[in-house]
Parts: sequence; structure tokens; C-alpha cells
Amino acid sequence: MSPSLSRPVTAVPAVDAARLLRRIDQLGNIGRDLVSGGVSRVGFGAADREARGYLIEEARKAGLAAAVDAAGNIIIRASAGGAADGRPALLMGSHLDTVVNGGRLDGAYGMLTALEVVETWEESGIEGRYEPVAIAFSNEEGALFPQPFFGSMAVAGRLGGLPPEPRDHQERSLRGPLAEVGGDLDSLADAAWPEGALAAYVEVHIEQGPVLERRGSRIGVVDGISGRSVSTVEIQGSAGHAGTTPMEKRQDALTAAARVILTAEGIARDRGLCRVATVGWLDLHPNSPNTIAETVRLTVDLRDTDARRMDDAEAALRDALRAVSAETGTAVAVVARTRSEPVATSVELRAAIEESARELGLPYETLPSGAGHDAQIIATVAPVGMIFVPSIGGVSHVPEEDTAPADLVAGAQVLLHTALRAAGARPRT
Amino acid sequence: MSPSLSRPVTAVPAVDAARLLRRIDQLGNIGRDLVSGGVSRVGFGAADREARGYLIEEARKAGLAAAVDAAGNIIIRASAGGAADGRPALLMGSHLDTVVNGGRLDGAYGMLTALEVVETWEESGIEGRYEPVAIAFSNEEGALFPQPFFGSMAVAGRLGGLPPEPRDHQERSLRGPLAEVGGDLDSLADAAWPEGALAAYVEVHIEQGPVLERRGSRIGVVDGISGRSVSTVEIQGSAGHAGTTPMEKRQDALTAAARVILTAEGIARDRGLCRVATVGWLDLHPNSPNTIAETVRLTVDLRDTDARRMDDAEAALRDALRAVSAETGTAVAVVARTRSEPVATSVELRAAIEESARELGLPYETLPSGAGHDAQIIATVAPVGMIFVPSIGGVSHVPEEDTAPADLVAGAQVLLHTALRAAGARPRT
Repeated sequence: MSPSLSRPVTAVPAVDAARLLRRIDQLGNIGRDLVSGGVSRVGFGAADREARGYLIEEARKAGLAAAVDAAGNIIIRASAGGAADGRPALLMGSHLDTVVNGGRLDGAYGMLTALEVVETWEESGIEGRYEPVAIAFSNEEGALFPQPFFGSMAVAGRLGGLPPEPRDHQERSLRGPLAEVGGDLDSLADAAWPEGALAAYVEVHIEQGPVLERRGSRIGVVDGISGRSVSTVEIQGSAGHAGTTPMEKRQDALTAAARVILTAEGIARDRGLCRVATVGWLDLHPNSPNTIAETVRLTVDLRDTDARRMDDAEAALRDALRAVSAETGTAVAVVARTRSEPVATSVELRAAIEESARELGLPYETLPSGAGHDAQIIATVAPVGMIFVPSIGGVSHVPEEDTAPADLVAGAQVLLHTALRAAGARPRT
Repeated sequence: MSPSLSRPVTAVPAVDAARLLRRIDQLGNIGRDLVSGGVSRVGFGAADREARGYLIEEARKAGLAAAVDAAGNIIIRASAGGAADGRPALLMGSHLDTVVNGGRLDGAYGMLTALEVVETWEESGIEGRYEPVAIAFSNEEGALFPQPFFGSMAVAGRLGGLPPEPRDHQERSLRGPLAEVGGDLDSLADAAWPEGALAAYVEVHIEQGPVLERRGSRIGVVDGISGRSVSTVEIQGSAGHAGTTPMEKRQDALTAAARVILTAEGIARDRGLCRVATVGWLDLHPNSPNTIAETVRLTVDLRDTDARRMDDAEAALRDALRAVSAETGTAVAVVARTRSEPVATSVELRAAIEESARELGLPYETLPSGAGHDAQIIATVAPVGMIFVPSIGGVSHVPEEDTAPADLVAGAQVLLHTALRAAGARPRT
């Protein structure tokens, strides 16, 4: 228990720290590999289904109603029909699915925090102008079905671009797995929330980076979620025998790729055109020690919270690709590009998070989210807020992903205070 | 038929051009993929066995004796027991096995040329101080069983370092496949030739590079075979989320690898420390667009015909790896290194090849071999010579590997003249 939480915090109800930590432990054991310690719950897979069952059972034990919409989102509230007086929802949540061999906190922590806050709120009999609702968005990571943010896109009414029969990486239809969790591929449009039903969305998440830990902050107030531009670059050179092709006759796709990798690094690190730039994936053909590389494909990932800076970074990348092509005699082209726009969080929700952290005596700071979150999808239809807690060592999507228990509890308490503030439900004094 | 061969060349017997070209066509259809046109005859595999059967049958039809030694080498001579008078052998040959999806000439052309010369020699009733012998060395490429030059190493008595039960890339023992072609894993030492039995070895091969074609030479006189140093470099960085890890906190194994790749290129191209340098193989973990590379392994292949220059290039690589480690904060280490020393060909055999080319009116030039050949292994026990013919477009180890028919015939004719000169068998006038 953190020093700041061991002292009484006025009369605002406190989350049940032991209950929250127990649930994090229990959920973290679902899909856990006993050797690596990593958690694998790919969206709509067996371990994901088990986690969904666990969440629904915990909600029901708490006297709450859990329903599943057509997109497989789990919606938890006081009663099945929603607020009797038609109050709009103050939505809180995250996701249960993970990457392969990921950690136990990404998504799961935010989801259990949302459940904890709804449960505490209802236990305390608080009234506000919004109804507290927790949501577990389906398939946020897209580890198996290659449509990340599936559940939040459905809620935001943005799944129109989906093929009629979406398939996973192994060419299996989504239809069966979605039906198995209570969804319905033919009714996805029903998962969109009507206008006015959603007052705001607040998500708690581990930072997944080193900033809070390094600076000693316990709460992060997210001011924006980075946009992300991913260009798939294809470099076409000429294969040749490594021993017999003179250096000046080569069109080596891998030495060209090396130039692209260093240029991408420089766009962010040296020229400061965007916040971060990464080449994390590279495919090389024929990939033989004795043969000059004929073809390389790689991804260049550029992120920033400012759309114009993303434009500049993309333009710098295009210029660099032309220069590498001219210098190496290879053909260099962007064969695919995806881009998600940066999103700003609500100024009012940011202020509510800051006031809550101050009230709880928790050092906080404002920072952007470098990773993508369901919040950036919901931001297209409602004001959103995001609360970060520190990641130990700044790592995520790996078995070692972790956060101190006191910080896990602190994040939940800040969410509760923030939600009460946003709903105009002043703490009883 | 080339202009230079269509005129009568004194009374030296001529190879049978039609017979040679027919055999090249027939052998090229064994293991050929009808879609890519590439040839796959991995050593000791099914297509390799079929090619061996073809060669043995052609030799027998020609009235020659074909025997298989313990290492699976096929040895073709006038009579099974060898020369009755104990004359040492003038050995000629190459190999039948290929890389996966390679060409129809690498190895096969030299082997069929050797058969053609032995056959022509014996048909002509020529006597010399050496016995002409053709050999098909087994498993030169090492595409399946990872011991390239297997057959020539056995002949040179250099297989002592082999594990007792060698296995292929799929962990299957060599024992069965070797027995299937007539070899015997327990008697490999018997394949070594006794001292004095081998007078010289001459190999004809496609150049596999662009030099002869570019300069209009029809014959290459090989003065040396490049040594080859292959270092497996492992770079250990830190995985991290591509969106949340600030640039200045990264230890990116792939940006470090890019520096190694460009340094290796510069060692040969800009600094001229060795003739060629290549990174052709790279393995990246976890290889995900959204994750900073944690580990990269890659091979740096350095070649030169001068051992001291190879030393210098290796030292420059080691210095560069230290600098990359310091600059990027990654751990960079050479985890494996193999090195074959450069080999010089025999001055006398070079002179004999040059005289033969001159006599036949074929433009020739002296050049090193960048690729490895069985000749470099045999060079440790006997004088060796190598004759190159032009590769169209300079390519090899690909389906497009090719040489003009006139050049294929010219190479065989130069081998015949060279062999007769080396054996002191002056052409009848």
C-alpha cells in the first residue's frame, strides 16, 4: 500500500485494493505460460474466452449486470437495461485480449480498474448526472484477427470498411469465434452507441514506456494519443554470388535497407521531425550468407501527436527513399501505408484527472501516449481521458511487464475520483 | 559452334560438341522445376541420386568404368583397376549437386566436360605420362548436409573433423543416404588418395561473375581461389514498444545491425581492404513492426586471394563492431567464425591453359575465383588448375544461370588441350 493511499482521503469512497489486486492476479493466470511467464490471450481465442467468462462471473458476483454486444464487447452496469432515467453513460474500460507472450497488465489492468470503480460507485450509492458503465472492448490487439480496435470501432460505428467475411491470419472466418463469445457478425452495426448515449470515456492503462518511472511520477495525465504512420517499403535489388560479384556491380537490397533504417532513425532522433521512428520488421530474400540480397521488405513506423509533424516526417522518408534508390541502384517503393491520426484528450477530463491526483497526494505529470488505445477510437464520438501508471523498466508486451501494486491501486483511485468529478457527484463530506 | 572451333585445330582431337551439349541438356532436366526453371539437386537427395545414375550410365555407354568411393565420389576411368602401369592420375571434374533452385551449369558443366575429355582422350588412343580420370565430387554445395566440399575433402584426407554421426539440416543421419549412393560412412578414410597417385587436378567451371562477359574474354585462367571468412555477428539490444520508448532510451539491435552492414560494405568498396564483403543473411527478433529489435544475428562474408588482406579486413570488422557497440549501447559479438584460406593455382597449369587458349584462338584473361570450388581443397595435396567460361549476365545459383553453347564447347576444348599438355601427350602431327 502506498503512503499516499494509507492516509484517509476525505470521504470519497476508496476502491477495494485487495479485491482489485486479487482480480489482477487471477486474470493474469488465464493464458499464462508457466515457463516464460508471458500471457497469451489472442482476441477470440480460447484463453480470451476464458478471461471473458471470468470477468462476467466477477461482475455478477458483485451484483452487476453483464451483457455482450454484437461485436463481442462486454458491457457491465448496475442493471441490464441501463439507467432507468436515460442518463448518458460515463464509460470506463479497456480490453482483455493480449499479444502473443505479452504481459498481464496491458488492457487487463484498465478493465479490472473500470469494474472496480463501477462496483465501488454502486456500493456507495452515489448519484451523478452520468451512469457509470464498464466496457471490455473486444480484440484491441488484433493478434489473430487482423483488425485491432475491433470492439471500440464497433461502438464508434466505424466498422463499415470490414470485409463481409473477415478472416484471421490462418484464413478462418471470424463468424464462428465471434458467435462463440455471444457476438453476431451480421449485426455489428447494432453495437454502435446512439448519439447522446455516451457522455465520456476514461481509460486507465500502464504507461508501457519509461517516462513516469524515470521522473518519479505516479500518475500520467495523457494529453494526446500519437498518430501512427506505418509504411511498408520494398527494395528490389539484384541477387548475385557473394564471392564473384564485384562491389561496383552490385545492387544490394540489404545495404540499401541499412540506409533506410538509419535514415528513419535520424528523422526522429537527429532531425526531430517526429517523436519516434522505428524499423522493427524486416524480411530478406533469399537470405543466404553466400548471396547478395535481392529483395528486402521492411516497415517504417513514424509517430507523433501532431498531424503536421507526421506529414513532415512522411515527406522526409519519401525523399530519403528516392535518395537511397539513386545511391544504390535499387528500386525502392512504399507498397503499403496505414495511418491513424493523432487524437487529443478532453481538456476537462485532463483537469479532472489532475485535480484527483493532487487530492490524493500523487505526483503526476502530463505526457502523450505513444501506443494506440481504444480511447483514440472512442475520441471520434465522445470526449476521452486517459490515466497512466508507471511501467517498471518501461517495458510492455513482454512477460516482464509489471507495475508496483501501490501504483495499480493509485490508478484505480484516481479513476474513481475522476469519474465522480466528471459526473458531478461530489464526494460526500 | 564458335568461329574459333569451326576451323580445324591442327591434329589435336576435338571434343564432341553435340554429345557434350546433349548431356548438359539431359542432366539439366534432372531436378528441374518446371515453373521456375531452377535446378534443385541437394547432395545425397533423390534428384542428386538420379543425376549420379545418369552420369554412371553415360560413362558405361562410353566404354569407361565408373566406381564409387566411400565418400560417394564417382570416379570414371578407362578400366576399373586404374592404369595398369601405375601412372599417376591427371584428375578432372567438378560436382553434380546444386543449391536449392540453382542453375543447370554450376558443377554439372565441369563434370560433363571432364567426362567428355576422358572419353575423347581414350577414343583417340593417346598415351601420356598421366592417366586421365574424371571425378564427380559428392556434396560440394552442402545444401542439405552442412559439410560443403565433402567429396573433395575425403579425397584430400581432410574429413577427420567430421562428427562420428553427421546429420543434415533436418537432423537425419548421413549414414543411410551415403550408403544409398554406394558410399560407407565407416570407411571415409579409404577415400583419401595415396601420396603420388594424384599428379594434378584441373576443373572447368562457369565464372559465376560478370568479368569475362564484360571484357569479351572467352576463357578465364584462374590464378587463385579467394579465401573466405564468414563471421556470425550477434547484436543484443533491448526490446521495447515502438510507440512509447523515447529515441534516446533505445538500444535498437536493428539500427546497430544497419551500421554493421554499411561498415562491412565500406571495408571492401571504400577502403579496399579486401576484394568483396557481403551481408547476405540476417535474422531479427522479435521482428514485429511495433517492437524495437531485441536481437539481430547476421553473417559478414569477407573474401580475398591474399591471406594478409583477409587478416586486415577481419581486424577492421572487429574494430567496427566495437565502435557500433559503443555508439548504440548494444552488445555486439562474433559468435562463430569460419575461414578458408586463399589458394594459388599451379603456375605450370596456368601456362598450359593460356597456351591452349592461344592455340585455339580464344581470347583469355587471368582472374581470381571469388567462389569456392573443390579445386581449393585438392590444392592441399596436388597442383590444381581452373578454367572459367563466361556467365551470361554474371549470375549463378539462380535459374537464369547460363553460358553460350559455343563457350561451353570452348571450355571443354581448352581442358582437353591443357590435359594433353600437362600429361606430355603432344598432339600427333
